[in-house]
Amino acid sequence: MNFTSDNVYGVDPRIMQAMVAANARLTDVSYCHDDGAKAVDARLSEIFGRDVRAFLVVNGTGANSLALSAICPTYGGVFCHETSHINTDECNCPELFMGGGKLVTMAGEGAKLAPAVLADKLSQFGHGEHGAKPYGLSITNATELGMVYTPTEIRALAEVVRPRGMKVHMDGARFANALVSLGCSPAEMTWEAGVDVLSFGGTKNGGMILEAVVFFDTALADDFLYRRKRTGQLVSKGRFLSAQMLAYLQDDVWLANARRANSLAQVLAKGLQASNRVRLSNPVHANEVFAIMPKSLFDAVQARGVRFYDWPWDGLAADEIHCRFVTSFATPEEHVIQFLQMVRELS
Amino acid sequence: MNFTSDNVYGVDPRIMQAMVAANARLTDVSYCHDDGAKAVDARLSEIFGRDVRAFLVVNGTGANSLALSAICPTYGGVFCHETSHINTDECNCPELFMGGGKLVTMAGEGAKLAPAVLADKLSQFGHGEHGAKPYGLSITNATELGMVYTPTEIRALAEVVRPRGMKVHMDGARFANALVSLGCSPAEMTWEAGVDVLSFGGTKNGGMILEAVVFFDTALADDFLYRRKRTGQLVSKGRFLSAQMLAYLQDDVWLANARRANSLAQVLAKGLQASNRVRLSNPVHANEVFAIMPKSLFDAVQARGVRFYDWPWDGLAADEIHCRFVTSFATPEEHVIQFLQMVRELS
Amino acid sequence: MNFTSDNVYGVDPRIMQAMVAANARLTDVSYCHDDGAKAVDARLSEIFGRDVRAFLVVNGTGANSLALSAICPTYGGVFCHETSHINTDECNCPELFMGGGKLVTMAGEGAKLAPAVLADKLSQFGHGEHGAKPYGLSITNATELGMVYTPTEIRALAEVVRPRGMKVHMDGARFANALVSLGCSPAEMTWEAGVDVLSFGGTKNGGMILEAVVFFDTALADDFLYRRKRTGQLVSKGRFLSAQMLAYLQDDVWLANARRANSLAQVLAKGLQASNRVRLSNPVHANEVFAIMPKSLFDAVQARGVRFYDWPWDGLAADEIHCRFVTSFATPEEHVIQFLQMVRELS
Amino acid sequence: MNFTSDNVYGVDPRIMQAMVAANARLTDVSYCHDDGAKAVDARLSEIFGRDVRAFLVVNGTGANSLALSAICPTYGGVFCHETSHINTDECNCPELFMGGGKLVTMAGEGAKLAPAVLADKLSQFGHGEHGAKPYGLSITNATELGMVYTPTEIRALAEVVRPRGMKVHMDGARFANALVSLGCSPAEMTWEAGVDVLSFGGTKNGGMILEAVVFFDTALADDFLYRRKRTGQLVSKGRFLSAQMLAYLQDDVWLANARRANSLAQVLAKGLQASNRVRLSNPVHANEVFAIMPKSLFDAVQARGVRFYDWPWDGLAADEIHCRFVTSFATPEEHVIQFLQMVRELS
Repeated sequence: MNFTSDNVYGVDPRIMQAMVAANARLTDVSYCHDDGAKAVDARLSEIFGRDVRAFLVVNGTGANSLALSAICPTYGGVFCHETSHINTDECNCPELFMGGGKLVTMAGEGAKLAPAVLADKLSQFGHGEHGAKPYGLSITNATELGMVYTPTEIRALAEVVRPRGMKVHMDGARFANALVSLGCSPAEMTWEAGVDVLSFGGTKNGGMILEAVVFFDTALADDFLYRRKRTGQLVSKGRFLSAQMLAYLQDDVWLANARRANSLAQVLAKGLQASNRVRLSNPVHANEVFAIMPKSLFDAVQARGVRFYDWPWDGLAADEIHCRFVTSFATPEEHVIQFLQMVRELS
Repeated sequence: MNFTSDNVYGVDPRIMQAMVAANARLTDVSYCHDDGAKAVDARLSEIFGRDVRAFLVVNGTGANSLALSAICPTYGGVFCHETSHINTDECNCPELFMGGGKLVTMAGEGAKLAPAVLADKLSQFGHGEHGAKPYGLSITNATELGMVYTPTEIRALAEVVRPRGMKVHMDGARFANALVSLGCSPAEMTWEAGVDVLSFGGTKNGGMILEAVVFFDTALADDFLYRRKRTGQLVSKGRFLSAQMLAYLQDDVWLANARRANSLAQVLAKGLQASNRVRLSNPVHANEVFAIMPKSLFDAVQARGVRFYDWPWDGLAADEIHCRFVTSFATPEEHVIQFLQMVRELS
Repeated sequence: MNFTSDNVYGVDPRIMQAMVAANARLTDVSYCHDDGAKAVDARLSEIFGRDVRAFLVVNGTGANSLALSAICPTYGGVFCHETSHINTDECNCPELFMGGGKLVTMAGEGAKLAPAVLADKLSQFGHGEHGAKPYGLSITNATELGMVYTPTEIRALAEVVRPRGMKVHMDGARFANALVSLGCSPAEMTWEAGVDVLSFGGTKNGGMILEAVVFFDTALADDFLYRRKRTGQLVSKGRFLSAQMLAYLQDDVWLANARRANSLAQVLAKGLQASNRVRLSNPVHANEVFAIMPKSLFDAVQARGVRFYDWPWDGLAADEIHCRFVTSFATPEEHVIQFLQMVRELS
Repeated sequence: MNFTSDNVYGVDPRIMQAMVAANARLTDVSYCHDDGAKAVDARLSEIFGRDVRAFLVVNGTGANSLALSAICPTYGGVFCHETSHINTDECNCPELFMGGGKLVTMAGEGAKLAPAVLADKLSQFGHGEHGAKPYGLSITNATELGMVYTPTEIRALAEVVRPRGMKVHMDGARFANALVSLGCSPAEMTWEAGVDVLSFGGTKNGGMILEAVVFFDTALADDFLYRRKRTGQLVSKGRFLSAQMLAYLQDDVWLANARRANSLAQVLAKGLQASNRVRLSNPVHANEVFAIMPKSLFDAVQARGVRFYDWPWDGLAADEIHCRFVTSFATPEEHVIQFLQMVRELS
């Protein structure tokens, strides 16, 4: 039983099959200039209801860091949540790709930014060249605490930064999970709400190496081919990336996978709430469940082979621990059921 | 009347005279390899009671950013206060010189870090290569809110990071002001308390371009000549930098200047406290006074030609403003007296 | 008929099958900490006859740039051939990952460096911190012009830089092709000859994403986990990288594939030499053939669907063109034969 | 007797006096926003016959590296001579400030680039994102071998790069020396010939810290205040920089100083040519003389206290040495005469 992350699971068989099929072609154009890459552009344009420019890259860290480098110069600042993945889990890669650009961080419940907090932070950047020049806003949907921003919430944030000419980035490592949770269209969740560039992640939702940077403000994509190459995010046998993306987007595989993962998270959340020893720390919107439990329970279930991480949290009692559970497209339903049964027995 | 900063004042006449005198030599060795630079090393070793390696640089931003680059690699993190100068007023220069190294920020009263807060923050950096690797701690003395760390407080912070092999940097843009406030020795305030590298600032206290990076852990200085050059912090006619530093350190000019500035700050603080319309926001330890006043008073004194900055502060009433007043070695005492008189008249 | 590059071909079926097999495991440890990654370390240690530390990365550009970042600081220089891949085909990625470290370039026939030229270039770096500090030497084997360095030649170069404490990197994008050409052991071609770190490439020789940085001087690998992460070269579902590498190294797949590619290059070279309209510009040691032909011939065969690149060359006649032909593990032999037949018909 | 560099001499007394005078003002606006800085802008606009934007910086390395960062992104390339100061004497600072941007080097007599060589080099950059994208051309006037580019020659180079949208930078560390040698106007030597941004150096010609980045294409100066700050090139007590520049430009101090230095170089060159043991290696256009002499002569004069550097040169006989002599605004004429007398005695 493994709830540590969605990336401990493998590859959706349909996506793997697409890679095998792509290998049937004796040769193909290399360096992501294959016809498949063009088809990805077209397919994503269709999905987002607008001409986009999409670039296949290697991982979420690369996608985020590259996207930020396209909206923020070396002397600029990108405003983000203090627990955002770009700030805590990418080991300075955003700063590297931006050439020293700064992440300016703020707090906020559920790993979400509030417009007033953002406005207040921005107001501190008025003393000319001494501080970083505000250039970007980055939000994560679904957030690092498994919640979602609604289109209305996104728009409210975008409106704070738009008058300054700043651009908006969305880290969509779990884009599909947020989308099916919201029940809105991809357009509503992105460019219609003010998003300029998106890290469109599929690896966690069934891909092997399945990430793209998607530009809605396509002027930002000028020279992006050079950016992708100079950061080592360009793969030579690109057909295997485009094949993954096309299979992922075909027949709504991506949406179905996300629905399944979200649904398991709901089952898990409800089951945990039923225990008198566990309480949820955050609403469950997507495929992650955050909960507080006694350390003794944590130890007991881990000893029985259930894997999940403890997770930072303020205000715990001495014998408590905060935990993250992630469900995925491939998590066996019976694992959730067995784990809940285990918790019940220990409650 | 100008209390905006200590750097709006000019150069101590003795330091200026030393520069004129240095010009009498027809030629001198360039690029900071002059005999004066060697004398600076010797003189600072004497002052700090230990063999140090000192490098003259161009400004405080350069000194700090270079010092950090010597203790923190590109994938590392330097822990500091969220309002530290390196984080808010150096426009990403630390990140640039560190090659993307991250500043990890914390809150704390008086712009001071508390050991428990630091320890807690560090405890979040245990998930391997996903987060920046902790390499450095940077504290400012006197702090950005005009307070000082005592040697005991510095040691307590150093002891938090030492077991991890981390190094300690002190931003001493107002080093002399802190030193005379504490009444301790330079050694007690630095390496005896655990400081490995110091930005030793003199520009604000009477110099023109008068900054040095001082290594107590001299192994960190290996290749520092290259670091200084490659960051554009090396001056060709270095004799004019060493002349400044030697004059600054001679006959306790540096200490006398700092005492004068601190003393004026005390006068100013006491005078402001006497007003029923002004309250201090922070204890006054060095040459800066932070105070909250009604906007109407702020406007009235500014209209009469008194210059000082408003400064960010949480929890102000709607009609209040938080202000910073800086006194310097050259601030005329009568300006302080006249200003206080003005406040009294307006109270 | 496609001789443009070895990377236009797909994935060796045995390697693809290994990826499919790796997908059978429900979960695996992510971020290249899987058992497969450990097995790669062990297997490469066996192959190189020494304990190595090997890190799977995403592409050759990443492998090279990361390897260089481990041997050269921001103010350092890496000496290399002016036509080396790191200098001409990686769009500043080495400079980015090194944080500004400089590639110092030299000329040399066959894209090979000569010890005397290297020694002479190094002699220009004696004026202290004004120039980059020499830290690394990088050579490519097989070279960008399809030739090989012998172990003796490698040792001669290493001996030039060793007294300065410099480290030696080998770009082995076509390592297997060089190895089978030389008929020596992997140890003889690398660490026994003075190589400290190797970019071990397999993508061009049958992999999909199949590259590793291999450290012989394992002290250089300290903190490499952080380096890999902060450059965006870490893949979450790492099992699919380790599976590729293990399959590649099993049953001498890598050597057999390289032998086949090299052998086809010999066939091609001999056939071209037989034409009175074509002459080879370089000896053919590995799987690349470089030849000079009339533009009319170039146009004629391209018009018949043969794909290959023109390539920079000095001293061509006005109607001549210099061309590169690459053969791979998967190039159909009949394509070579048909192409040579075509040339004969046009001669 | 010291001919090692123009920067071993001190500061022109008129410039030093201007600094002393600037100190008479009790306070001034800091961070190079003083009225003096505005006057510099106006004065340079007058001198160049066009509205320029000028920024005072700390040194030539900073000026060059900052200027390049304004014309070349991280994935770009700046084309320059292989012996240019930016390539050989700035220890990777250009690469640092450009965020990894590459210097693409070429050979050429007299440290000058030829249009055909430049065009040929550029022709190699047509394979898309694999190589750096050409963004800038940098030339030095006077060159590192003491020669000058004429306006016609500059225009010929600019015309090679202009059709690609590339920008032209001039390193004017010895701008005045070149200008008085050419006898043309500042406009003719710069923007009229196609220069977009200039490093305008005065330190070597009588200043202490006297360098400016001057933009003729003023759109390039957007955000330059941030660039200057984030690279540590911003000085707080900026009045002492503007005072230097204004004094330098007043009453043609800069031109007179350069004429004097150039004239001494002519005397020195003629004297050396008269010796049967010395031959000039390059025409003498400005204030540097390059000559080849027997090592025995070199040793003999150095033993008598004459200081000058040996300098790299190809094709020397075994007993020969190539040397550089630099004259400055302050070099005593009798030193030149005495040295020539010494050479005569030893010939």
